[in-house]
Amino acid sequence: MLNFGCDYLEGAHEKILARFIETNMVKEPGYGFDQYTISAKKKILEACECPDGEVYLLVGGTQTNSTVIDAYLNNYQGVIAATTGHIACHESGAIEASGHKVLTLPQHLGKIDAAELKEYLVNFYGDETYEHQVIPGMVYISHPTEYGTLYTKAELEAIYDICKEYEMPLFVDGARLGYGLAAEGTDVTLPGLAKLCDVFYIGGTKVGALCGEAVVFTKKAPKFFFTTVKQHGALLAKGRLVGVQFETLFTDDLYMEISRHAIKMANILKAGVVAKGYKQLIDSPTNQQFFIVSNEKLAELKKHVSFSTWEKVDEDHTAIRFATSWATKEEDIQALLELL
Amino acid sequence: MLNFGCDYLEGAHEKILARFIETNMVKEPGYGFDQYTISAKKKILEACECPDGEVYLLVGGTQTNSTVIDAYLNNYQGVIAATTGHIACHESGAIEASGHKVLTLPQHLGKIDAAELKEYLVNFYGDETYEHQVIPGMVYISHPTEYGTLYTKAELEAIYDICKEYEMPLFVDGARLGYGLAAEGTDVTLPGLAKLCDVFYIGGTKVGALCGEAVVFTKKAPKFFFTTVKQHGALLAKGRLVGVQFETLFTDDLYMEISRHAIKMANILKAGVVAKGYKQLIDSPTNQQFFIVSNEKLAELKKHVSFSTWEKVDEDHTAIRFATSWATKEEDIQALLELL
Amino acid sequence: MLNFGCDYLEGAHEKILARFIETNMVKEPGYGFDQYTISAKKKILEACECPDGEVYLLVGGTQTNSTVIDAYLNNYQGVIAATTGHIACHESGAIEASGHKVLTLPQHLGKIDAAELKEYLVNFYGDETYEHQVIPGMVYISHPTEYGTLYTKAELEAIYDICKEYEMPLFVDGARLGYGLAAEGTDVTLPGLAKLCDVFYIGGTKVGALCGEAVVFTKKAPKFFFTTVKQHGALLAKGRLVGVQFETLFTDDLYMEISRHAIKMANILKAGVVAKGYKQLIDSPTNQQFFIVSNEKLAELKKHVSFSTWEKVDEDHTAIRFATSWATKEEDIQALLELL
Amino acid sequence: MLNFGCDYLEGAHEKILARFIETNMVKEPGYGFDQYTISAKKKILEACECPDGEVYLLVGGTQTNSTVIDAYLNNYQGVIAATTGHIACHESGAIEASGHKVLTLPQHLGKIDAAELKEYLVNFYGDETYEHQVIPGMVYISHPTEYGTLYTKAELEAIYDICKEYEMPLFVDGARLGYGLAAEGTDVTLPGLAKLCDVFYIGGTKVGALCGEAVVFTKKAPKFFFTTVKQHGALLAKGRLVGVQFETLFTDDLYMEISRHAIKMANILKAGVVAKGYKQLIDSPTNQQFFIVSNEKLAELKKHVSFSTWEKVDEDHTAIRFATSWATKEEDIQALLELL
Repeated sequence: MLNFGCDYLEGAHEKILARFIETNMVKEPGYGFDQYTISAKKKILEACECPDGEVYLLVGGTQTNSTVIDAYLNNYQGVIAATTGHIACHESGAIEASGHKVLTLPQHLGKIDAAELKEYLVNFYGDETYEHQVIPGMVYISHPTEYGTLYTKAELEAIYDICKEYEMPLFVDGARLGYGLAAEGTDVTLPGLAKLCDVFYIGGTKVGALCGEAVVFTKKAPKFFFTTVKQHGALLAKGRLVGVQFETLFTDDLYMEISRHAIKMANILKAGVVAKGYKQLIDSPTNQQFFIVSNEKLAELKKHVSFSTWEKVDEDHTAIRFATSWATKEEDIQALLELL
Repeated sequence: MLNFGCDYLEGAHEKILARFIETNMVKEPGYGFDQYTISAKKKILEACECPDGEVYLLVGGTQTNSTVIDAYLNNYQGVIAATTGHIACHESGAIEASGHKVLTLPQHLGKIDAAELKEYLVNFYGDETYEHQVIPGMVYISHPTEYGTLYTKAELEAIYDICKEYEMPLFVDGARLGYGLAAEGTDVTLPGLAKLCDVFYIGGTKVGALCGEAVVFTKKAPKFFFTTVKQHGALLAKGRLVGVQFETLFTDDLYMEISRHAIKMANILKAGVVAKGYKQLIDSPTNQQFFIVSNEKLAELKKHVSFSTWEKVDEDHTAIRFATSWATKEEDIQALLELL
Repeated sequence: MLNFGCDYLEGAHEKILARFIETNMVKEPGYGFDQYTISAKKKILEACECPDGEVYLLVGGTQTNSTVIDAYLNNYQGVIAATTGHIACHESGAIEASGHKVLTLPQHLGKIDAAELKEYLVNFYGDETYEHQVIPGMVYISHPTEYGTLYTKAELEAIYDICKEYEMPLFVDGARLGYGLAAEGTDVTLPGLAKLCDVFYIGGTKVGALCGEAVVFTKKAPKFFFTTVKQHGALLAKGRLVGVQFETLFTDDLYMEISRHAIKMANILKAGVVAKGYKQLIDSPTNQQFFIVSNEKLAELKKHVSFSTWEKVDEDHTAIRFATSWATKEEDIQALLELL
Repeated sequence: MLNFGCDYLEGAHEKILARFIETNMVKEPGYGFDQYTISAKKKILEACECPDGEVYLLVGGTQTNSTVIDAYLNNYQGVIAATTGHIACHESGAIEASGHKVLTLPQHLGKIDAAELKEYLVNFYGDETYEHQVIPGMVYISHPTEYGTLYTKAELEAIYDICKEYEMPLFVDGARLGYGLAAEGTDVTLPGLAKLCDVFYIGGTKVGALCGEAVVFTKKAPKFFFTTVKQHGALLAKGRLVGVQFETLFTDDLYMEISRHAIKMANILKAGVVAKGYKQLIDSPTNQQFFIVSNEKLAELKKHVSFSTWEKVDEDHTAIRFATSWATKEEDIQALLELL
């Protein structure tokens, strides 16, 4: 059985496991004050060319989103996101559970549009009853998006300019950031991203780690962010668990190296599938690839491959998603292509 | 430098790391549907002799407390705990952040007293304004407590009887459960505990794992508990991270074996320190040991050993805490005794 | 200056003020246990032909919505509403502030459609990741809606059938209920409404009272609803303030009598405006009337009349809203018609 | 039957009712933009000698407490209060429902002690794990307290100095403020109070109004306080309901005049009861009077008088509370004294 169901099918990169073993019996303090976490933070800030920033290592994506958003928003504020943003639809109401509304904008292949954001804000503050509504206090975007697409540098600049004009922090969900940075043709780099937002996170869980998301505050973390992390149940007693992983991922460019591998695999897959005459639902430059198959083909494929059924296209066709990752083997891609 | 600062100084038991390596490249579904989690749950229910229970694997203690408590309480209810209960003082307001008050009872070496619980409830419902107050909806105790002490079976029975009378679930925080079950003289066993509460957790982080707490619902989990876990940011994409660890800990009695080791080390330490004429603050049967030292001794010790300064006893004396764990070496105990 | 800006421009019906004076110095217990509140509740249940129901008197609309919704929902649940529902857009995030997401359905002149509700639920539970989302736990509709429109009895039945099928309570926001019940051609009566939902409220603030909304639970209130009311800051020490008002409104059919007056005024207004050749934005049967005027007319009108600017229709035209109420005088309608 | 059960037994002062009638049919905008509210705010700021402050009129005490506290606190902060503070025990968890812990200090006849406050803060920040706890973000006191006692000016100064040192706003719950300001011997005046805290409220519900609490921000309200008020369900559509009341209470010194009446009544009562040989539980200078009676006397009194049973003193004696108010008649005091 082949499996292209998601990008978190395996454990961790072997160098991470090796490092766990190497460091296992060293006694280190808890809560992120261990040497591995300290070193990981330093390496990440260097990679981001962001020496005055601050890094916190959290465990998972939903947790990171709700912790960061809660830390920034006042009680009367909500967070703006695309209707397809992860926080808007796939986090069981974690944002609302901490008291904040998710204010949605239309999505365009998973992205929000700067002009629409501006229009929303102009209309909002132009409405004389705006103080009876939820005040927009932050903007959330995903890069790559939930549809595998990417913002260009110019798009990020346009969004960030508006955020600054309205004094709203910009938060970039980078659960799959590596696969975005490694995509062909993107002009968004890690240091470039760090200049175009207030906070973002570097996803580990989907990019080679067992767990872990590195939150980068490009200027300064909100006051008492440590306490907010603890309150959200996101503080590991053994901070080394994530510290060791990010230290390893940010040593010798491993994070980018394995991200590039996933992209290479995705591109082979894409070229192969398109060559066979299948249409793409979206032409994604990252590790998620979306194709349209007939319903018979769908049924047949399911016998041999795990993948995501994305959405119904018409009565006879369905869009499906294959995900590659740091761990994908080229032989599996070939086997998949043969099945198609 | 010796280090007896806490019970989460090292990584994980070597068998866990070995098992990570063994299973690393097996493709498994996420969110706790992997084979290791499924197997871990089965083994845990067997060890608890609780075949109709349900197990969920979460990441850390504060997270587990806030998730479980939020799942049980209605909006108008609070949770009863000792003033020294972890949820009452060391979780940055995680319980309140989900909308619930912690209602405190006096502590007796970290424990609540069944008679005082009953008195509290009688007084509460005897007050004609009780509907203007927070309705007690659950009881939370720690076993071992934050002071290293243990409830007896009879004490648990007395508390649980009151809980049943008032239709409040009893929740036992077992962040250090192994060290409680392995203590000499205790009459509380794992199957015994499962009969005397509605939900408890088996701490992994402090007992051999890198992270992880196994929540055991002795009857049935609250409806949509999976969704509550997700909402609290406690759902791992790679559930195998905790699944592999608990499967290993509950294979060949490893959890109890390593717990017994910590107790053995604690007892050697205790006997040695007492023999040197030091007084105990509390005579703890578990892995946390509390002694009273002069302030000069305190200053001297700090040069050579890491430990917790617990509380001031008088002008000239201070109580300190040494913690042993699954990873403590007898040679370090001997070195510590020599320093004393 | 004429004023048709809203339906809460004046104080209270004169009979209410007279009753305040009559009862002012009678000593009565607080918190809704006064004789006027008790009598009001009885009269309301009689008018609803709902002898086994329960009534609570709250102060205002947003408060009532957030209190009732919070009382019904579990932590993992959200409330379904039209995108134009008051809770979805005009309550400053009060629902989210108590931890719950508002799940929106398309609006059709302010109403939700039973078939779309069913489709939403079928799709929701058909999505294999639904447990990663917010579980729909309640349905909220407004009658009249924010657009002055009304559900028919058949529409309510269709919605309520779905609610029962999915075990979700149906909650009807009746901030302007009187104006809905008094509308010409409606087949929804007060006893009829009480049979077609689990909870609704009878708006007082917009229908003759200084403040007050009477929440009617058609079967039974959620457990400890009194405590939830207190927690939401919605419990009046002097419950008589609302008790006296609703007792008066539900004596000698006053509530319906004054509601019918507002409808009569609205109908004279509508007929007059339409006769002058203006188009309606919506043909509303209730006390809110929506017309389309040229932008020049708009500017001119503003000098002489207060009203709501509803929305832009095209470059040259704007929709405006005039509201009548229990207190509207026919001479003011005539004056307005002359201005048009 | 005599009734000294509380200070909200009657409706409103007759001048308020007269003013309702006078202003009833004047069309005014909603949400606190009516002329009466505007005038009330001006008069209140003048009475407070606080020209740069801001005033908001809310409906009730618990609502005001939860709205003000939520507006000031960040997600990681709690509010310090006496164990007997209204927010700590009689508000059904309203503070926790908005996510904040109430951090308690010992009470001394209902008051907190500046030295103990300071000690608490020194210990808190001296504890190296303080970031794992709830950060104190605000101090709440009641004046008069729940025991009828008063802070002196010097005590308020001492508390406020500490608040400023730790950058925590000081909030004074003045649900019974009039009775405190009118007490004999107090050196705390309305302008004096305004100089010694950041926010306080002037209670209307218990001092002559049907409902209403005037929140005075002595410097500036928190940003978007209007939106917070709406979110908490505390915004009246007909703001005139409270506007008219406070305008009347702050015209011709009515608020103080009626407060003085209540104190005069309380002092006659106190002198009379003490002369009959009864002991006081507390020697309160305000409108709440606490006496100790034998249990037989208690039983006998209950047949003829309504009052509060405060607490058990010993096997044979009980403390009871009589409350006077703006509406208490001297003839009822005499009748009560005869019964004693």
